[in-house]
Amino acid sequence: METQDHPAVFRHVLGDCRWDGVACQAYKEEGAAPFKAVSRQVLFSQPELAAELRYFEVAAGGWSTLERHAHVHAVMVLRGHGSCLVGCVVRDIRRHDLISVPPMTWHQFRAAADQPLGFLCLVNADRDRPQLPDADDLADLCTDPGIAAFLAQN
Amino acid sequence: METQDHPAVFRHVLGDCRWDGVACQAYKEEGAAPFKAVSRQVLFSQPELAAELRYFEVAAGGWSTLERHAHVHAVMVLRGHGSCLVGCVVRDIRRHDLISVPPMTWHQFRAAADQPLGFLCLVNADRDRPQLPDADDLADLCTDPGIAAFLAQN
Repeated sequence: METQDHPAVFRHVLGDCRWDGVACQAYKEEGAAPFKAVSRQVLFSQPELAAELRYFEVAAGGWSTLERHAHVHAVMVLRGHGSCLVGCVVRDIRRHDLISVPPMTWHQFRAAADQPLGFLCLVNADRDRPQLPDADDLADLCTDPGIAAFLAQN
Repeated sequence: METQDHPAVFRHVLGDCRWDGVACQAYKEEGAAPFKAVSRQVLFSQPELAAELRYFEVAAGGWSTLERHAHVHAVMVLRGHGSCLVGCVVRDIRRHDLISVPPMTWHQFRAAADQPLGFLCLVNADRDRPQLPDADDLADLCTDPGIAAFLAQN
Protein backbone atom coordinates (compact mmCIF):
# COMPACT_ATOMS: atom_id res chain seq x y z
CA MET A 1 0.00 0.00 0.00
CA GLU A 2 2.95 2.33 0.56
CA THR A 3 4.05 3.84 -2.76
CA GLN A 4 5.03 7.31 -3.82
CA ASP A 5 1.39 7.98 -4.70
CA HIS A 6 -0.22 6.29 -1.72
CA PRO A 7 1.12 6.98 1.75
CA ALA A 8 1.11 4.26 4.39
CA VAL A 9 -2.42 3.75 5.69
CA PHE A 10 -1.35 3.92 9.35
CA ARG A 11 1.42 6.10 10.70
CA HIS A 12 1.69 6.02 14.47
CA VAL A 13 2.81 9.01 16.47
CA LEU A 14 6.21 8.42 18.06
CA GLY A 15 5.68 10.94 20.86
CA ASP A 16 6.16 14.72 20.98
CA CYS A 17 4.74 15.25 17.51
CA ARG A 18 7.05 13.10 15.45
CA TRP A 19 5.54 10.44 13.20
CA ASP A 20 6.67 7.08 11.93
CA GLY A 21 7.75 7.49 8.30
CA VAL A 22 7.42 11.29 8.25
CA ALA A 23 10.68 13.20 7.74
CA CYS A 24 11.37 16.15 10.02
CA GLN A 25 12.66 18.77 7.59
CA ALA A 26 14.06 22.26 7.64
CA TYR A 27 11.24 24.83 7.59
CA LYS A 28 12.75 26.67 4.63
CA GLU A 29 16.06 26.77 2.86
CA GLU A 30 18.57 28.54 5.11
CA GLY A 31 18.92 32.18 4.06
CA ALA A 32 15.79 32.13 1.85
CA ALA A 33 13.78 34.10 4.40
CA PRO A 34 14.16 35.19 8.03
CA PHE A 35 12.95 32.67 10.63
CA LYS A 36 14.25 31.11 13.82
CA ALA A 37 14.09 27.53 15.06
CA VAL A 38 11.25 26.05 12.97
CA SER A 39 10.85 22.48 11.71
CA ARG A 40 8.42 21.14 9.13
CA GLN A 41 6.78 17.75 8.67
CA VAL A 42 4.46 17.00 5.74
CA LEU A 43 1.74 14.76 7.20
CA PHE A 44 -0.49 14.39 4.14
CA SER A 45 0.38 15.18 0.53
CA GLN A 46 -0.83 12.95 -2.29
CA PRO A 47 -2.16 13.29 -5.82
CA GLU A 48 -5.79 12.54 -4.89
CA LEU A 49 -5.84 15.30 -2.27
CA ALA A 50 -6.26 18.92 -3.39
CA ALA A 51 -4.61 20.15 -0.20
CA GLU A 52 -1.64 19.35 2.03
CA LEU A 53 -1.51 19.06 5.79
CA ARG A 54 1.80 20.07 7.34
CA TYR A 55 2.97 20.23 10.96
CA PHE A 56 5.30 23.07 11.89
CA GLU A 57 7.04 23.33 15.21
CA VAL A 58 8.59 26.56 16.40
CA ALA A 59 11.05 25.97 19.26
CA ALA A 60 10.75 28.05 22.45
CA GLY A 61 11.62 31.64 21.59
CA GLY A 62 11.50 30.99 17.84
CA TRP A 63 9.36 32.49 15.08
CA SER A 64 8.14 31.71 11.57
CA THR A 65 8.74 34.00 8.59
CA LEU A 66 6.67 37.19 8.41
CA GLU A 67 5.06 36.76 4.99
CA ARG A 68 1.91 36.97 2.86
CA HIS A 69 0.55 35.15 -0.22
CA ALA A 70 -2.63 34.71 -2.22
CA HIS A 71 -3.33 31.24 -0.83
CA VAL A 72 -4.99 30.85 2.53
CA HIS A 73 -3.77 29.03 5.63
CA ALA A 74 -6.06 27.03 7.90
CA VAL A 75 -4.18 26.46 11.15
CA MET A 76 -4.80 24.47 14.34
CA VAL A 77 -2.40 24.65 17.28
CA LEU A 78 -1.44 21.13 18.31
CA ARG A 79 1.18 21.69 21.01
CA GLY A 80 2.36 24.42 23.37
CA HIS A 81 1.44 28.06 23.12
CA GLY A 82 2.61 31.37 21.74
CA SER A 83 1.23 34.26 19.77
CA CYS A 84 0.53 35.17 16.19
CA LEU A 85 0.01 38.16 13.97
CA VAL A 86 -2.66 37.96 11.28
CA GLY A 87 -3.26 41.19 9.39
CA CYS A 88 -3.37 43.89 12.04
CA VAL A 89 -4.26 41.62 14.96
CA VAL A 90 -1.92 39.97 17.48
CA ARG A 91 -3.38 37.16 19.60
CA ASP A 92 -2.17 34.67 22.16
CA ILE A 93 -2.81 31.15 20.91
CA ARG A 94 -2.87 27.80 22.65
CA ARG A 95 -3.56 24.13 21.98
CA HIS A 96 -6.48 23.48 19.59
CA ASP A 97 -7.09 27.15 18.78
CA LEU A 98 -7.98 27.72 15.10
CA ILE A 99 -6.44 30.46 12.97
CA SER A 100 -7.55 31.33 9.44
CA VAL A 101 -5.12 33.45 7.43
CA PRO A 102 -6.97 35.23 4.57
CA PRO A 103 -5.36 35.91 1.18
CA MET A 104 -2.54 38.50 1.00
CA THR A 105 -2.47 39.01 4.76
CA TRP A 106 0.77 39.46 6.69
CA HIS A 107 1.19 36.71 9.28
CA GLN A 108 3.77 35.33 11.67
CA PHE A 109 3.75 32.71 14.44
CA ARG A 110 5.91 32.99 17.57
CA ALA A 111 6.47 30.40 20.29
CA ALA A 112 6.41 31.40 23.94
CA ALA A 113 9.83 31.84 25.57
CA ASP A 114 9.41 28.68 27.68
CA GLN A 115 7.90 26.10 25.32
CA PRO A 116 7.50 25.19 21.66
CA LEU A 117 4.54 26.09 19.50
CA GLY A 118 3.44 23.27 17.21
CA PHE A 119 0.66 23.73 14.69
CA LEU A 120 -1.06 22.01 11.77
CA CYS A 121 -1.28 24.11 8.61
CA LEU A 122 -3.64 23.20 5.79
CA VAL A 123 -2.94 24.70 2.35
CA ASN A 124 -4.03 24.08 -1.22
CA ALA A 125 -1.64 21.75 -3.04
CA ASP A 126 -1.53 24.29 -5.89
CA ARG A 127 -0.44 27.60 -4.38
CA ASP A 128 1.64 30.73 -4.94
CA ARG A 129 4.97 31.51 -3.32
CA PRO A 130 5.14 33.69 -0.19
CA GLN A 131 6.11 37.35 -0.41
CA LEU A 132 8.40 38.98 2.14
CA PRO A 133 7.80 42.51 3.47
CA ASP A 134 9.98 45.33 2.18
CA ALA A 135 11.05 48.28 4.30
CA ASP A 136 7.85 50.21 3.52
CA ASP A 137 5.65 47.23 4.47
CA LEU A 138 7.53 46.88 7.76
CA ALA A 139 7.24 50.59 8.48
CA ASP A 140 3.48 50.40 7.79
CA LEU A 141 3.08 47.41 10.11
CA CYS A 142 5.11 49.08 12.86
CA THR A 143 2.89 52.17 12.98
CA ASP A 144 0.76 49.94 15.25
CA PRO A 145 2.59 49.75 18.62
CA GLY A 146 1.19 46.25 19.34
CA ILE A 147 2.52 44.91 16.04
CA ALA A 148 5.83 46.72 16.53
CA ALA A 149 6.21 45.06 19.95
CA PHE A 150 5.25 41.65 18.52
CA LEU A 151 7.81 41.92 15.71
CA ALA A 152 10.54 43.21 18.05
CA GLN A 153 10.60 40.00 20.16
CA ASN A 154 13.79 38.57 18.68
CA MET B 1 -13.45 39.88 8.66
CA GLU B 2 -16.17 37.32 9.47
CA THR B 3 -18.43 36.81 6.47
CA GLN B 4 -19.90 33.77 4.80
CA ASP B 5 -16.84 33.59 2.57
CA HIS B 6 -14.22 34.41 5.19
CA PRO B 7 -14.31 32.67 8.54
CA ALA B 8 -13.27 34.48 11.70
CA VAL B 9 -9.50 34.76 11.80
CA PHE B 10 -9.26 33.45 15.39
CA ARG B 11 -11.53 30.83 16.89
CA HIS B 12 -10.49 29.79 20.37
CA VAL B 13 -11.03 26.28 21.65
CA LEU B 14 -13.64 26.19 24.41
CA GLY B 15 -12.32 22.99 25.99
CA ASP B 16 -12.93 19.33 25.12
CA CYS B 17 -12.79 19.92 21.38
CA ARG B 18 -15.57 22.44 20.98
CA TRP B 19 -14.77 25.74 19.24
CA ASP B 20 -16.07 29.26 19.48
CA GLY B 21 -18.34 29.89 16.48
CA VAL B 22 -18.25 26.29 15.21
CA ALA B 23 -21.60 24.45 15.29
CA CYS B 24 -21.62 20.91 16.70
CA GLN B 25 -23.79 19.06 14.19
CA ALA B 26 -25.27 15.64 13.68
CA TYR B 27 -22.78 13.35 11.91
CA LYS B 28 -25.30 12.40 9.22
CA GLU B 29 -29.02 12.67 8.74
CA GLU B 30 -30.68 10.18 11.10
CA GLY B 31 -31.58 6.99 9.20
CA ALA B 32 -29.38 7.85 6.18
CA ALA B 33 -26.73 5.32 7.18
CA PRO B 34 -25.92 3.20 10.22
CA PHE B 35 -23.77 4.90 12.89
CA LYS B 36 -23.82 5.37 16.64
CA ALA B 37 -23.06 8.44 18.74
CA VAL B 38 -21.02 10.61 16.36
CA SER B 39 -20.90 14.42 16.16
CA ARG B 40 -19.42 16.58 13.41
CA GLN B 41 -17.86 20.05 13.46
CA VAL B 42 -16.63 21.75 10.28
CA LEU B 43 -13.48 23.59 11.32
CA PHE B 44 -12.40 24.97 7.94
CA SER B 45 -14.49 25.23 4.77
CA GLN B 46 -14.20 28.25 2.52
CA PRO B 47 -14.17 29.05 -1.20
CA GLU B 48 -10.40 29.69 -1.37
CA LEU B 49 -9.61 26.29 0.13
CA ALA B 50 -9.78 23.18 -2.08
CA ALA B 51 -10.31 20.97 0.97
CA GLU B 52 -12.30 20.92 4.18
CA LEU B 53 -11.13 20.06 7.68
CA ARG B 54 -13.77 18.49 9.89
CA TYR B 55 -13.64 17.19 13.47
CA PHE B 56 -15.66 14.08 14.25
CA GLU B 57 -16.17 12.77 17.73
CA VAL B 58 -17.39 9.25 18.36
CA ALA B 59 -18.70 8.84 21.93
CA ALA B 60 -17.45 5.93 24.06
CA GLY B 61 -18.75 2.70 22.52
CA GLY B 62 -19.87 4.46 19.32
CA TRP B 63 -18.87 3.96 15.68
CA SER B 64 -18.89 5.79 12.37
CA THR B 65 -20.59 4.46 9.25
CA LEU B 66 -18.87 1.59 7.44
CA GLU B 67 -18.50 3.08 3.95
CA ARG B 68 -16.28 3.67 0.92
CA HIS B 69 -15.97 6.39 -1.75
CA ALA B 70 -13.65 7.58 -4.49
CA HIS B 71 -12.33 10.53 -2.45
CA VAL B 72 -9.60 9.97 0.10
CA HIS B 73 -9.59 10.73 3.82
CA ALA B 74 -6.57 12.10 5.67
CA VAL B 75 -7.18 11.59 9.37
CA MET B 76 -5.41 12.58 12.59
CA VAL B 77 -6.68 11.40 15.97
CA LEU B 78 -7.05 14.40 18.27
CA ARG B 79 -8.61 12.92 21.40
CA GLY B 80 -9.07 9.57 23.10
CA HIS B 81 -8.48 6.21 21.49
CA GLY B 82 -10.22 3.41 19.66
CA SER B 83 -9.75 1.29 16.58
CA CYS B 84 -10.37 1.54 12.88
CA LEU B 85 -10.78 -0.64 9.85
CA VAL B 86 -9.17 0.50 6.59
CA GLY B 87 -9.43 -2.00 3.75
CA CYS B 88 -8.55 -5.37 5.28
CA VAL B 89 -6.60 -4.01 8.26
CA VAL B 90 -7.87 -3.29 11.79
CA ARG B 91 -5.62 -1.17 14.02
CA ASP B 92 -5.77 0.39 17.45
CA ILE B 93 -5.40 4.15 17.15
CA ARG B 94 -4.57 6.84 19.68
CA ARG B 95 -3.97 10.58 19.93
CA HIS B 96 -1.98 12.04 17.01
CA ASP B 97 -1.88 8.82 14.98
CA LEU B 98 -2.34 9.42 11.24
CA ILE B 99 -4.66 7.35 9.04
CA SER B 100 -4.84 7.62 5.26
CA VAL B 101 -7.93 6.06 3.65
CA PRO B 102 -7.26 5.30 -0.05
CA PRO B 103 -9.97 5.58 -2.74
CA MET B 104 -12.83 3.01 -2.70
CA THR B 105 -11.63 1.40 0.52
CA TRP B 106 -14.04 0.24 3.22
CA HIS B 107 -13.41 2.07 6.50
CA GLN B 108 -14.95 2.55 9.91
CA PHE B 109 -13.85 4.22 13.16
CA ARG B 110 -14.82 2.92 16.59
CA ALA B 111 -14.28 4.55 19.97
CA ALA B 112 -13.04 2.53 22.91
CA ALA B 113 -15.71 1.45 25.40
CA ASP B 114 -14.43 3.84 28.07
CA GLN B 115 -13.69 7.09 26.22
CA PRO B 116 -14.51 9.07 23.10
CA LEU B 117 -12.51 9.00 19.89
CA GLY B 118 -12.11 12.44 18.31
CA PHE B 119 -10.38 12.90 14.96
CA LEU B 120 -9.67 15.48 12.30
CA CYS B 121 -10.65 14.42 8.79
CA LEU B 122 -9.35 16.26 5.72
CA VAL B 123 -11.26 15.79 2.44
CA ASN B 124 -11.42 17.50 -0.92
CA ALA B 125 -14.16 20.13 -1.05
CA ASP B 126 -15.35 18.54 -4.30
CA ARG B 127 -16.04 14.87 -3.56
CA ASP B 128 -18.35 11.96 -4.28
CA ARG B 129 -20.98 10.55 -1.93
CA PRO B 130 -20.19 7.54 0.27
CA GLN B 131 -21.36 4.06 -0.69
CA LEU B 132 -22.72 1.63 1.90
CA PRO B 133 -21.89 -2.10 1.83
CA ASP B 134 -24.52 -4.53 0.58
CA ALA B 135 -24.97 -8.03 1.98
CA ASP B 136 -22.32 -9.47 -0.38
CA ASP B 137 -19.78 -6.78 0.60
CA LEU B 138 -20.41 -7.52 4.29
CA ALA B 139 -20.07 -11.25 3.72
CA ASP B 140 -16.78 -10.67 1.90
CA LEU B 141 -15.46 -8.48 4.72
CA CYS B 142 -16.51 -11.00 7.36
CA THR B 143 -14.54 -13.86 5.81
CA ASP B 144 -11.66 -12.29 7.77
CA PRO B 145 -12.22 -13.20 11.45
CA GLY B 146 -10.48 -10.01 12.67
CA ILE B 147 -12.77 -7.82 10.56
CA ALA B 148 -15.82 -9.86 11.59
CA ALA B 149 -14.93 -9.31 15.25
CA PHE B 150 -14.33 -5.59 14.65
CA LEU B 151 -17.71 -5.15 12.94
CA ALA B 152 -19.54 -7.20 15.57
CA GLN B 153 -18.72 -4.77 18.43
CA ASN B 154 -22.15 -3.14 18.60
